[in-house]
Amino acid sequence: MNVITPTENKWIGARTVRPDGADKVTGRAAYAADTTMPGMIWGKVLRSPHAHAIIKSIDTSKAEALPGVKAVVTAKDIVDFPVDKSVMLGIQDMRWMCRNVMAREKALFHGHPIAAVAATTEATAAEACKLIEVEYEVLPHVIEIEDAIKPDAPILHDFLKHEGKPSNIAGTMVAKLGDIEQGFAEADVVIERTFRTRPVHQGYIEPQACTVSYAPDGRATIWSSSQGQFMVRAMTSLLTGVPQSNIRAIPAEIGGGFGAKTIIYLEPVALLLSKKSGRPVKMVMSRDEVMRATGPTSGSFSTVKIGAKKDGTIVAAQGTFYLQAGCLPGSPLRGPVGCSFAPYAIPHVLSVGYDVVSNRSKVAAYRAPGAPLGAYATECVLDELAEKLGIDPLELRHRNSAKTGMKAAYGATFNQVTFEETIEAIQNHEHYKSPLEKNPRPGIKRGRGVASGFWYNAGGESSAQVNLTEDGNVVVTTGHPDVGGSRASIANVTAELLGVEHDRVSVIIGDTASIGFSNLTGGSRVTFASAMVVTQSVEKVIGQLKERAAKIWKIDPEAVIYENGACRPAGPNAGQFPPLALKDLAAKANETGGPIGAGVQLNTQGADPGFATHVVDVEVDVDLGIVRVLRYTAAQDVGRALHPSYVEGQIQGGVVQGIGWALSEEYLYDRQGRLDNANFLDYRMPVCSDVPMIEAVVLEIPNPRHPQGVKGVGEAPIVPPLAAIANAVYDALGRRFYSLPMSPPKVTEVMDMKLAAE
Amino acid sequence: MNVITPTENKWIGARTVRPDGADKVTGRAAYAADTTMPGMIWGKVLRSPHAHAIIKSIDTSKAEALPGVKAVVTAKDIVDFPVDKSVMLGIQDMRWMCRNVMAREKALFHGHPIAAVAATTEATAAEACKLIEVEYEVLPHVIEIEDAIKPDAPILHDFLKHEGKPSNIAGTMVAKLGDIEQGFAEADVVIERTFRTRPVHQGYIEPQACTVSYAPDGRATIWSSSQGQFMVRAMTSLLTGVPQSNIRAIPAEIGGGFGAKTIIYLEPVALLLSKKSGRPVKMVMSRDEVMRATGPTSGSFSTVKIGAKKDGTIVAAQGTFYLQAGCLPGSPLRGPVGCSFAPYAIPHVLSVGYDVVSNRSKVAAYRAPGAPLGAYATECVLDELAEKLGIDPLELRHRNSAKTGMKAAYGATFNQVTFEETIEAIQNHEHYKSPLEKNPRPGIKRGRGVASGFWYNAGGESSAQVNLTEDGNVVVTTGHPDVGGSRASIANVTAELLGVEHDRVSVIIGDTASIGFSNLTGGSRVTFASAMVVTQSVEKVIGQLKERAAKIWKIDPEAVIYENGACRPAGPNAGQFPPLALKDLAAKANETGGPIGAGVQLNTQGADPGFATHVVDVEVDVDLGIVRVLRYTAAQDVGRALHPSYVEGQIQGGVVQGIGWALSEEYLYDRQGRLDNANFLDYRMPVCSDVPMIEAVVLEIPNPRHPQGVKGVGEAPIVPPLAAIANAVYDALGRRFYSLPMSPPKVTEVMDMKLAAE
Repeated sequence: MNVITPTENKWIGARTVRPDGADKVTGRAAYAADTTMPGMIWGKVLRSPHAHAIIKSIDTSKAEALPGVKAVVTAKDIVDFPVDKSVMLGIQDMRWMCRNVMAREKALFHGHPIAAVAATTEATAAEACKLIEVEYEVLPHVIEIEDAIKPDAPILHDFLKHEGKPSNIAGTMVAKLGDIEQGFAEADVVIERTFRTRPVHQGYIEPQACTVSYAPDGRATIWSSSQGQFMVRAMTSLLTGVPQSNIRAIPAEIGGGFGAKTIIYLEPVALLLSKKSGRPVKMVMSRDEVMRATGPTSGSFSTVKIGAKKDGTIVAAQGTFYLQAGCLPGSPLRGPVGCSFAPYAIPHVLSVGYDVVSNRSKVAAYRAPGAPLGAYATECVLDELAEKLGIDPLELRHRNSAKTGMKAAYGATFNQVTFEETIEAIQNHEHYKSPLEKNPRPGIKRGRGVASGFWYNAGGESSAQVNLTEDGNVVVTTGHPDVGGSRASIANVTAELLGVEHDRVSVIIGDTASIGFSNLTGGSRVTFASAMVVTQSVEKVIGQLKERAAKIWKIDPEAVIYENGACRPAGPNAGQFPPLALKDLAAKANETGGPIGAGVQLNTQGADPGFATHVVDVEVDVDLGIVRVLRYTAAQDVGRALHPSYVEGQIQGGVVQGIGWALSEEYLYDRQGRLDNANFLDYRMPVCSDVPMIEAVVLEIPNPRHPQGVKGVGEAPIVPPLAAIANAVYDALGRRFYSLPMSPPKVTEVMDMKLAAE
Repeated sequence: MNVITPTENKWIGARTVRPDGADKVTGRAAYAADTTMPGMIWGKVLRSPHAHAIIKSIDTSKAEALPGVKAVVTAKDIVDFPVDKSVMLGIQDMRWMCRNVMAREKALFHGHPIAAVAATTEATAAEACKLIEVEYEVLPHVIEIEDAIKPDAPILHDFLKHEGKPSNIAGTMVAKLGDIEQGFAEADVVIERTFRTRPVHQGYIEPQACTVSYAPDGRATIWSSSQGQFMVRAMTSLLTGVPQSNIRAIPAEIGGGFGAKTIIYLEPVALLLSKKSGRPVKMVMSRDEVMRATGPTSGSFSTVKIGAKKDGTIVAAQGTFYLQAGCLPGSPLRGPVGCSFAPYAIPHVLSVGYDVVSNRSKVAAYRAPGAPLGAYATECVLDELAEKLGIDPLELRHRNSAKTGMKAAYGATFNQVTFEETIEAIQNHEHYKSPLEKNPRPGIKRGRGVASGFWYNAGGESSAQVNLTEDGNVVVTTGHPDVGGSRASIANVTAELLGVEHDRVSVIIGDTASIGFSNLTGGSRVTFASAMVVTQSVEKVIGQLKERAAKIWKIDPEAVIYENGACRPAGPNAGQFPPLALKDLAAKANETGGPIGAGVQLNTQGADPGFATHVVDVEVDVDLGIVRVLRYTAAQDVGRALHPSYVEGQIQGGVVQGIGWALSEEYLYDRQGRLDNANFLDYRMPVCSDVPMIEAVVLEIPNPRHPQGVKGVGEAPIVPPLAAIANAVYDALGRRFYSLPMSPPKVTEVMDMKLAAE
């Protein structure tokens, strides 16, 4: 095992005070809804009362006549991207986004925006929405995947064709390796199972919100909560026709995103309302709107078939993953298709994903999009396989681990595979070694489960600026919202590299005008990429410091060493002059050439995938059907933990979200296709009392292609929990659940069936 | 004459739409008082009711007990800089600033801050101020310079010594050339006169205002209106002890500064109130507070003596300038001492300035600080000299003009003297050539006057960042507030250099976290310096564009030419590939290496001084004593007018402020040392109906040390008007005024004396 413990760095790896902490706990942090402007008015959205309907006409005249109403917009105000030509922005197709932001030809789900009103008060805007007269032709709707792919299903979009016919299957994705037929022919044991998961919401606490001011000269300012101010700028630009240089997108503090804030809903609408009304416009979603009309992740319907030799060598794996896209194309097929089998060295792989539309809100990214539902199927089948072969489930995984240099079915060649280390960390952990009493008391059954997970991780475009203040301190600006501690990590890196105290470094998130282009906070890329650009910027600053010292000493800059926060002369000049600290050089910056600071803009490369292995103990109350998580240990290779508390927090957060997905969260629709539990009371996310302290085993195996060895951390932890918990429940009850969530009604139903059979 | 007309540039020199225009005329521009924050409370200042008093004790207990009061601060909360050690920040001495922001040992003027309160409402804070009990020992006060330098004058500061004794003379400044005694010995004609000017206020429309949020982790955000967000950060840091890296100073739109917002009053107080209360604190001065307690410029008491040969050759010039500092040291001695004689080639010069404290508000910089009052004296004496010698006053100036390469008394050697060109521009102007009817009707007398002026101009530290958006537009960030059109000028320069349409460039003022250190908007430096750093940044961006094109074409970047907004292959590859426009390259930025953008931080050099020559026609209503300006023409070398409308606006604005100074503005004190006209009704600034359209003759003689040939513009225009108008009034009435303003009471008094004498 190649686990690296932290070196004697002073700040990298230190649990420094988080830069955003005080602001957040004292209520000072300015979230999107906290922005106000003189003359500001309120925007509200009219939403479809039908799950599926043709919009025959919209009459806004009565709404416009209501005193206090300043503007109304409908789809005709939004830039139309014709359905026959794809316009991509990152992974988003603007054809679908323009129709998601405002229903165009049809209302495609209950809650789909139909029009929006801006008025002097929120109540007036809401009142005006009711005065908008919409003529609908109601159509039959379809909610579930199985129904949507039936031959006689109501078709959402005539222009979508599958196998030559109009279909709700909007697209497919395939990953392939070897010859799947041959693979299964070589297998001694083959297990094939079908699994279902329900859509779950990202569950961020802060609803979508924005304030947009559009001035008569065509320049707009957007304050909003997002996972990328540059994404907000680009998408709003495309949907409104306002050039990017005329839009300044200012990132508010973000109260959770988990992927869902990588796209926009309100910003273009608010901009157009502001343009029409000549007033700044604020829009804040209610929780009901968030649940009903912002993306959950896909529900799924998956079949996984795995074949192995008697000795446990896996020879073939096949996956068929149907994912709910919601009302417009765009399921995260890449998650299950690419990740499910990626941790394993399997010679024959066929992984196929289907993107299925139905009359639900369009899905949005959710932490390792799609990967958990793929791993749920795969890792449960592996559990059955291990049992059938009589091999320890971790040993089965270890034996089949992918290796460095190997090519994955999804196409990449691995630079560094650290999967085995995560398995060994759990195998050697006290949790896995300690016995579990399976029947502690009557009506209570306990079980233990394991599962592993994989996530790609990403690099991409980031920018940074590092400036010295005149009093010798440091200000760093980066271009991505901080959702998981990037400010804290960057402060640690900067303090370490410059040899200054951590609290003398401030890290700021710049807006789109003040920092170079920086891609989304997503894909587990931000700490990786921003540490890289900040490191390069600091190196430039150190170069400047050496030049300044050399100028003062009248020696060659090459003969200057920067160490422990100061320049000192080296080589033939060593000891000739007393060292010049950063503080001294900053104070002399003016006379030695000007301010000291440097920026770097880069498309970062070298992100390596993340591997995770988890073990969980559960307890099932057989009568009540309640599954409780007793103990949970998650091991993950994080490359280098710049700030261990945040790394642990990411792992713990991912696991908790996985627990919710496995045990309690789901979207419930009524017969009219209306979401029935659009609130936090009926949509049951785990709260503190539902979960134990999650133990994070942080493995630091430096990524050799990153200056600090950083690897993405945030997404891999949500991949194993669904399967790990399902495997543990199986261990407890001897019954396997092929459908999530394993909520009390479902557990009691299965237990009743089991009791009846016994 | 070497006047350069604009070349065929498309954008440099174009009168493009001003970037801030729409926001300002529609009320959207966010000035300092427009910032609000959740939980924000209001700060108010208790001010001294005495012009001079020892503060024996301050009891804040009753104020603190008032419901709604959250914090009280006094001088003991402000960092104390002991009086025996100077701590300079730019030209500001923190010893004086800490005592100006909050009275420490003594109240030094009526209106001096004694304490400040923050409370939930503005009214409560004001109420609480009244509950603060201050025990004063009232001292005799002194207001006027002549009184303050008397041997028995009340001494403001025991620690200030002049010629070994406690004195109100806080300092002196000397500029010297040759031997003044010898110079006057060589003269055929010597004229010596004494002049007085009154303090005048900068008269910005937007009062000082700020909102400061100090979080429990010691990090503060300041929104305020200033001429330099970095100045705000640095001074607040020094006065509060909060490190610069913990302060983010965000520049609000600024509603005028004219020099006075190069220092702070409220920010450190609001920060300390925020720190004590745990709440964001807003403070906005009333007009009364602005007039009473923020710096006007110095009143003065000056004697100028000039000796010339019969042929008009000036051989000696001596100036003695006593300037009011207000209650703490810091008159702009550099203005009159350095500028008064600088335009002239005089072999023997002695120029001495005295900094005199008295019980007035501490002066602050005002457009070409101190230079107008020096020019008033000098240019009036020159007028008398011309008359006495029988030489045309412009011809006298032309004959004695300084020359390129000459050393000025204040120490600099001129790189480029363009004084003669400004004189010739007026000599050749239709205004100067056209006759003036001196007695158009009974009781009305008309006269014409000329005068010249000089200002240093400055370079210094500036930073810029130029980024391309993904859709191929341009965003530029600079670090100084835009008080005179720097955004418009920078947009012109950027569009020109990049070959893109002007409206595809946005120019933003960054806050202290998001852009490199940039010195004050002042000294006529900002367009000069920011055009320089933006040019260098754009050059880097063009270098990147060439590299990206070369990468796409797989050729050497050296073989790429950037022209008219596109790269094209050159040399052996010419014509082999179609050109790649900036837009195309921006769209491909990710795949060719990452975002495209570059920043530069520089201590800019190469600013050349500004010269101005003005001619004015006035009409005096002899009975009412009203002097009206009939026509005004101002010629100035501006180097290169990046945006001519703004250049003209600067010249026009400077002249109008000079007209106010000459004719109507003055501080009036009562016997208790209380300002008697602390409002815009009684303090008479010229309004639109008081002035004619000022004709600006814009001479473009490129500064060879600047990429676009730019020279500072904003300050030189306020230097000549005082003397030009005084000379015109003399021409009209045959009576010379040795004291400003030439307001109706003073004119009638003089006319009555004249009539009585006749």
